[in-house]
Amino acid sequence: MSRWAPDARERLEAAALDLFVENGYEETTVAQIAERAGLNRATFFRHFTDKREVLFGGEDVLAGLFADAIAAAPDETVTGCLRAAFTAADAAMTPRQRAKAAKRVLVVAGNSELQERGLLKHARIARSVSAALRTRGADELTARLGAEVGMLAFTIAVERWMKATDDEPFSHFAAAALDDLRERAAELDSLSRFSA
Amino acid sequence: MSRWAPDARERLEAAALDLFVENGYEETTVAQIAERAGLNRATFFRHFTDKREVLFGGEDVLAGLFADAIAAAPDETVTGCLRAAFTAADAAMTPRQRAKAAKRVLVVAGNSELQERGLLKHARIARSVSAALRTRGADELTARLGAEVGMLAFTIAVERWMKATDDEPFSHFAAAALDDLRERAAELDSLSRFSA
Repeated sequence: MSRWAPDARERLEAAALDLFVENGYEETTVAQIAERAGLNRATFFRHFTDKREVLFGGEDVLAGLFADAIAAAPDETVTGCLRAAFTAADAAMTPRQRAKAAKRVLVVAGNSELQERGLLKHARIARSVSAALRTRGADELTARLGAEVGMLAFTIAVERWMKATDDEPFSHFAAAALDDLRERAAELDSLSRFSA
Repeated sequence: MSRWAPDARERLEAAALDLFVENGYEETTVAQIAERAGLNRATFFRHFTDKREVLFGGEDVLAGLFADAIAAAPDETVTGCLRAAFTAADAAMTPRQRAKAAKRVLVVAGNSELQERGLLKHARIARSVSAALRTRGADELTARLGAEVGMLAFTIAVERWMKATDDEPFSHFAAAALDDLRERAAELDSLSRFSA
């Protein structure tokens, strides 16, 4: 990062999201993003490989945070490992990121290529979580189920976190979503969650 | 379907998969597929919109079979609805399809664009299952969890079914995979599935 722009990455991200929403993802160029951020193209490419990376770079960070947290989780049950992963995610899911999340969702929803890319990133994080659970000793099916349930809890938590009006940590939303899903998982064979 | 080629779709699909495996997906043209099947391009386009449809057309069929079966399931628990969906899938998951499944997996695994498309189709089926469960009265989280668990059971069942050596119906594999996952779901808070 250059000495004179310690917040370059943040500024580029904010500029890119604004331009994607205003003019469309396809229509926005890297030069326009750099200009809006008051930086140059070279600085952009020091932080992102391309404009798609502005939208999905965070997913690789999350996959790494999740895997490391699961490897080090003191509570070695699957839910204990997932809670440790969610706590680690707080480093990436900051209030500043929350402000950008709605724009990001809007841009991705409007472009089927971006949606597919988002699903691929989601699948990669799930595989990373599953592999980390396997390393902790979970059998294959437990690891895959744990990863799917964990990713669904994460998705639901992001939806709720985006609507929140205070700065409650993301991990609280994720732990609550996981609890909600565990409750439902215990009832998949019963009628109690059905209104009819 | 033309009178003189009642099995045109099957022949085109088999020819396409063979060519994709032999020469690569990108390199294979619709003209080559039609020629290998002993048919013409017009017949190809009567059955498929493009060559990608040969690989993913079945997903739309499955989404419809699942949704209809869930709507009509006599057992209205989530697992009862999923079992009804799996039974309906037998219409699409025939022994003849099984013979092609390994080639299909091979082709998709070798092309990242096809992988992304596969994930998108998978996500669409999951949404269709979730919506059908909602219509049966499940609350939103139960429907989303049921859809994810159902899709994981389906994926695991496909893996096992592809390796099977007899013609046991697909739905048996799917029901067994669902039972395996329900057992694990009940134990996500315990250590019993952990070897350490």
